[in-house]
Amino acid sequence: MDEKTIKTRIKAIRNLIRSKKLDCLILTAVENVTYTTAFSGDDSWALITPRSVILFTDSRYTEQAASECFGCRIIDRKGPMVKAVTTAIARLRSVRVIGLDSKVPVSVLKELKKYTKLRIKPVPNIVESCRAVKDPHEIKAIAAAAKIAWQSLALTLPKIKPSITETTLAGLIDFNMRKLNARTSFDTIVAFGPNASRPHHQPGTRKLRTNDTILIDFGAIYNGYCCDMTRCFTIGKVSGLYRRVYAAVFAAQQAAIAQIAPGVKLTQADAAARQVLKDCGMPNYGHGTGHGLGLEIHENPFISATSDTTFEPGQTITIEPGVYIPGKLGVRIEDDILVTDSSHKIISKDRQHNFSKPQLKYYHLK
Amino acid sequence: MDEKTIKTRIKAIRNLIRSKKLDCLILTAVENVTYTTAFSGDDSWALITPRSVILFTDSRYTEQAASECFGCRIIDRKGPMVKAVTTAIARLRSVRVIGLDSKVPVSVLKELKKYTKLRIKPVPNIVESCRAVKDPHEIKAIAAAAKIAWQSLALTLPKIKPSITETTLAGLIDFNMRKLNARTSFDTIVAFGPNASRPHHQPGTRKLRTNDTILIDFGAIYNGYCCDMTRCFTIGKVSGLYRRVYAAVFAAQQAAIAQIAPGVKLTQADAAARQVLKDCGMPNYGHGTGHGLGLEIHENPFISATSDTTFEPGQTITIEPGVYIPGKLGVRIEDDILVTDSSHKIISKDRQHNFSKPQLKYYHLK
Repeated sequence: MDEKTIKTRIKAIRNLIRSKKLDCLILTAVENVTYTTAFSGDDSWALITPRSVILFTDSRYTEQAASECFGCRIIDRKGPMVKAVTTAIARLRSVRVIGLDSKVPVSVLKELKKYTKLRIKPVPNIVESCRAVKDPHEIKAIAAAAKIAWQSLALTLPKIKPSITETTLAGLIDFNMRKLNARTSFDTIVAFGPNASRPHHQPGTRKLRTNDTILIDFGAIYNGYCCDMTRCFTIGKVSGLYRRVYAAVFAAQQAAIAQIAPGVKLTQADAAARQVLKDCGMPNYGHGTGHGLGLEIHENPFISATSDTTFEPGQTITIEPGVYIPGKLGVRIEDDILVTDSSHKIISKDRQHNFSKPQLKYYHLK
Repeated sequence: MDEKTIKTRIKAIRNLIRSKKLDCLILTAVENVTYTTAFSGDDSWALITPRSVILFTDSRYTEQAASECFGCRIIDRKGPMVKAVTTAIARLRSVRVIGLDSKVPVSVLKELKKYTKLRIKPVPNIVESCRAVKDPHEIKAIAAAAKIAWQSLALTLPKIKPSITETTLAGLIDFNMRKLNARTSFDTIVAFGPNASRPHHQPGTRKLRTNDTILIDFGAIYNGYCCDMTRCFTIGKVSGLYRRVYAAVFAAQQAAIAQIAPGVKLTQADAAARQVLKDCGMPNYGHGTGHGLGLEIHENPFISATSDTTFEPGQTITIEPGVYIPGKLGVRIEDDILVTDSSHKIISKDRQHNFSKPQLKYYHLK
């Protein structure tokens, strides 16, 4: 992170603040605070005024904030957050309307209103809309996270042994990410056999069998940025049904990715994936086809049948269709894609470990 | 989890709903949904009416919900959540006021209002106040989580070697929790030497030295319930200052714990810890003295100088004073306590590994 990047972001946000006729903007969501101040801790708020950026934190974080933040004032609050922020606003000149990021809980808005008589206007998507289009620093960070995630998977796969449990395998992936100085961007999903039919399966005590399948949905967070990938593997013999499903999901994913380009409707990518599965006689999936990712694992834009926007250069998204047959199997293939000026690029590509092109892997247990 | 426990909870919540003159209650916070339905997934809401409990989820979770929930109707929503919930409410008889848990984002409240003309009243702390007092099932779950956390620490400590990094050590703890079928209840903090002066330090690439100190703040989540403990260890020689600080923090923690009993003000426990440190000539700490824990790692009650309630039997809380000297050291000692009918009990006690009584450990690196 550098000072210039932060300045560019603040400038864009100030333009939106002005266009929405606000005099300042309170940010409460941790990712919005990080985006505007470079502070990576939590329990802190930011205030964007026409002239300054203020971070409100407490003594747990003042040392960290001082070393991370650029061009922003750090206030070490002693009392309630709402009091500290409204006191700072009261000192500003000619503030009439305070903007507030609309992820804030209703209860916090109520609290804020106890401390100020100025008008508080919750406004959605000011910082989020800036965040949906990534700057080069962010794209690099997501790619770096993806590289670590693949490395972690490459370190883990050779350790797969008969009778390993889902939780131990998930733990190994997580440990290898930690060893590579990253963390998991969400709770790693490891699902053996029919467990994969639950898209958000929690790893359990199910043991790996001689002939089995593995679904791994995982991601690293590195320097604050998330990646999110899913791969499927087979152990020993694989059924004809699993092969057919895998081929269909892979084709569906490729069809959706092929649609991605600036100006194309998000629904078009969603429909492309679902159409391929339909043509293959496969059941439709109940989740979206993909989501933006960056500081958050799920952020704008969301790709589904009800999306109402188009792709924009700089967006980073997942594409992750799946087929789920309860009691039998589940297959999902997921990659992270950057919308480029003219088309798209797979940012989760990794030639080193050959996970870059999704393919069915056959692991024979020793 | 059993049906009787859920029924008792719903009964208590319905009493509060009635007392607040609400006709039904929408729950959006994942922990509130889990508490009332036993469903452990996310992205789902619950609706409590005088006659029924409804879980609104989607196809990713319907299989899981069917196997987890007790006596609650499961709706597999296809469209937006707000639409599904308001449609169900419209079918109820004589609803005038809809209650809504006040953790809901302002933007969601706005969305809800698009779909219904009934009065929506955000109400704080209905489910949260029930959750603050644990039932036996929950106390057992927190104790089980603590047992796993200690086991994980016991498995990890023998692996500490010169030059191990903070991240690798954190990763080992996390891995051992996974192996024991649990997960981390928050991002494990491992801080070597002066890094511990930041209470929320993120583990980094700092390597362990021959003479060093280690602070580990960690917890497991098991069957949905969190524990949260902190221990400090020394490697090789330890400075006189560190010993004095450690003794003061330990005395402060014991003083706070000694205060815990039903009817005692929370501020009294907070003041007891701070007074001991003051008497020892140590700096005050900027964070609270403790917090409730259960389905969430931080929940009611919060123990600080501004708390305005008293201890109640069944509450489960942390006590975690600390001393932080930037550039030099940080020491924090944290245990999980149950408020009993007459006094208190340390639920994070574990005789097996001898971490139960906080004490300075001397690890000599091999």
